Amino acid sequence: MAETDRRTIIAGIGAGLVAAAANGACAAPRDRKIGYAVVGLGGYAELIMSKFAECDNARLTALVSGTPAKLERFGTQYKIPASHRYSYANFDSIRDNPDVDVVYVILPNSMHAEYTVRAARAGKHVMCEKPMAVSTAECQTMIDACRAAGRKLMIGYRSRFEPHNRLAIEMARNGFVGPTRIITSEHGFNAQPNQWRLDRALAGGGSLMDIGIYSLNAVRYLTGEEPVEVSAMESTDRSDPRFGTVEDRISFLMRFPSGIESTCVSSYSSNHNAYRVIGTKGWIGLEPATGYDGHKMFVHRDGRTEQQSVPAGKKQHAGQLDHFAECIINDTQPLVPGEEGLADLRVIEAIYRSAREGRRVQVGA
Amino acid sequence: MAETDRRTIIAGIGAGLVAAAANGACAAPRDRKIGYAVVGLGGYAELIMSKFAECDNARLTALVSGTPAKLERFGTQYKIPASHRYSYANFDSIRDNPDVDVVYVILPNSMHAEYTVRAARAGKHVMCEKPMAVSTAECQTMIDACRAAGRKLMIGYRSRFEPHNRLAIEMARNGFVGPTRIITSEHGFNAQPNQWRLDRALAGGGSLMDIGIYSLNAVRYLTGEEPVEVSAMESTDRSDPRFGTVEDRISFLMRFPSGIESTCVSSYSSNHNAYRVIGTKGWIGLEPATGYDGHKMFVHRDGRTEQQSVPAGKKQHAGQLDHFAECIINDTQPLVPGEEGLADLRVIEAIYRSAREGRRVQVGA
Repeated sequence: MAETDRRTIIAGIGAGLVAAAANGACAAPRDRKIGYAVVGLGGYAELIMSKFAECDNARLTALVSGTPAKLERFGTQYKIPASHRYSYANFDSIRDNPDVDVVYVILPNSMHAEYTVRAARAGKHVMCEKPMAVSTAECQTMIDACRAAGRKLMIGYRSRFEPHNRLAIEMARNGFVGPTRIITSEHGFNAQPNQWRLDRALAGGGSLMDIGIYSLNAVRYLTGEEPVEVSAMESTDRSDPRFGTVEDRISFLMRFPSGIESTCVSSYSSNHNAYRVIGTKGWIGLEPATGYDGHKMFVHRDGRTEQQSVPAGKKQHAGQLDHFAECIINDTQPLVPGEEGLADLRVIEAIYRSAREGRRVQVGA
Repeated sequence: MAETDRRTIIAGIGAGLVAAAANGACAAPRDRKIGYAVVGLGGYAELIMSKFAECDNARLTALVSGTPAKLERFGTQYKIPASHRYSYANFDSIRDNPDVDVVYVILPNSMHAEYTVRAARAGKHVMCEKPMAVSTAECQTMIDACRAAGRKLMIGYRSRFEPHNRLAIEMARNGFVGPTRIITSEHGFNAQPNQWRLDRALAGGGSLMDIGIYSLNAVRYLTGEEPVEVSAMESTDRSDPRFGTVEDRISFLMRFPSGIESTCVSSYSSNHNAYRVIGTKGWIGLEPATGYDGHKMFVHRDGRTEQQSVPAGKKQHAGQLDHFAECIINDTQPLVPGEEGLADLRVIEAIYRSAREGRRVQVGA
């Protein structure tokens, strides 16, 4: 393909993304922005709270924490009045707060289900961090609770709102490097000791529940398909004090209905943040792929590899917060609803089962 | 680590490699170079024959082919007299040719065992292309035949003589990026139809027997360990006329005694040529990793990725031919003897069994 054609195609896809982003930003003026209560004030919540300043349709209106000092500190920083600061004990009274439309659950994984259900019962829409919960059964309970309450549920898959990932999805699904044959996806970091992520009771598992889910979710969104079967292998040094109850590394293979194969890495003892979509005519790679920033896209076609510039668009955190706000305003379905979180957990359960039983496992069987 | 330290370490390793290469080149003068007969005059043999010109201790002295026109063409090109040109029918009379020390078998995989055994019985040392054979049983027969004849056997693992790969092995085994935790290795190309590689009777298998063996062998040489267990998954479109009898893609996971995990790709429908060694402190990557030329090394440490220059040294094909010649001259064991080919086949059999039976397989069990 000539260089001109290549540029035209990428520009076309990019323009589409920019137009889509602009559409959202140009929605009709409204009386007020959608109000979010953030539940759980750890490190990631701190980052999220700082992102409301970039939002068009979302604002931070309440805080929930078991630590009074955090409520005081972040309440002051974000001008959240004492009436809008909650403990876990009085959390359910959030039902009476009309400034809260959404409860954003950023708690340890094992607490996602409980707080999602309680938020739905309090009449609030729910944004919940990934992994959605620690089992498919919990995921289904959360979906059911939100449905019963007539409230929306979205999972915090921020990469779906990140411009490089959005472009990669478009290019992969449109065969920019031919039909996809293989996807490699690797995510990992060196886990620091003494944190809830390393406690199975709170995290529900190890690296796969935390960083490995990015490897899995990326392959699912790059293919637009659900894996048929998985095969997994774990490697954990149980003498390492970090890994008393959770796994370190777990690698897994997936096969998709169209025949795409995928090799994935999940690790708590090495740094990885990359994926590559390999088609019959070349490949599209992101590295870093799913971090908070610094994403880079590389495209290999016609025998050469080039870095690909990507139209900027709205940043992923603000994009995610605004998207759910717009879904509420327009009564539309989120791009990544509870069913998306459930789909990941279904595969995660199959991966753990495969590693444990030493056999290939059909997903959902 | 400071930039100076980084450069010093790499320069140190590089200097060692250059010294090792120089040692070989500076061996005492001898009466004559070791004479090679090339058996099978296909595309790869044509490349090999052109490389004797770069050798210090090896020379091309005989040709074996079933096609008289090829014997005529290459015989003329390389000044091989008619007395040193053999058909498969009179191949065994090569025993009477004192100009032939080594028979280099570059035939379709299913013929490796027969011609290795016949060459050994003719009193010749044997260099055999990879995969060594189509089963571990054949590999053992070949090893036994060479041992019984008192002749040496080496497998054509050319990457072991390629400077980037040699440096990567040194760096990986010496913990340049910390202890290795994960290795990813991907090899594949778009197979053209109508060739012996796609005929199971000749090839013994599909992509894994041809290009996937690079993924496997690289992980073995980068770890210096033998895998304990493997798990594999195949994806082949049987409606594609290329894949009537052999597999297209087969991905596999391996676990090693030290706990290293590996994810590997083997493909006949997408282009891959890369590996990456990920340690606790960064990674070492080659891409292209195992081609004929154009290798590039990248090192990621301290949060940044840099291309790493590698001292040139002797090129891989000449290095391989000269190495075996020197083993014969000095009566030493080749770096990659028959046992190395057998070790790969042992894992390949486990990979095929895992894919077929849908379960994790212990290697050699």
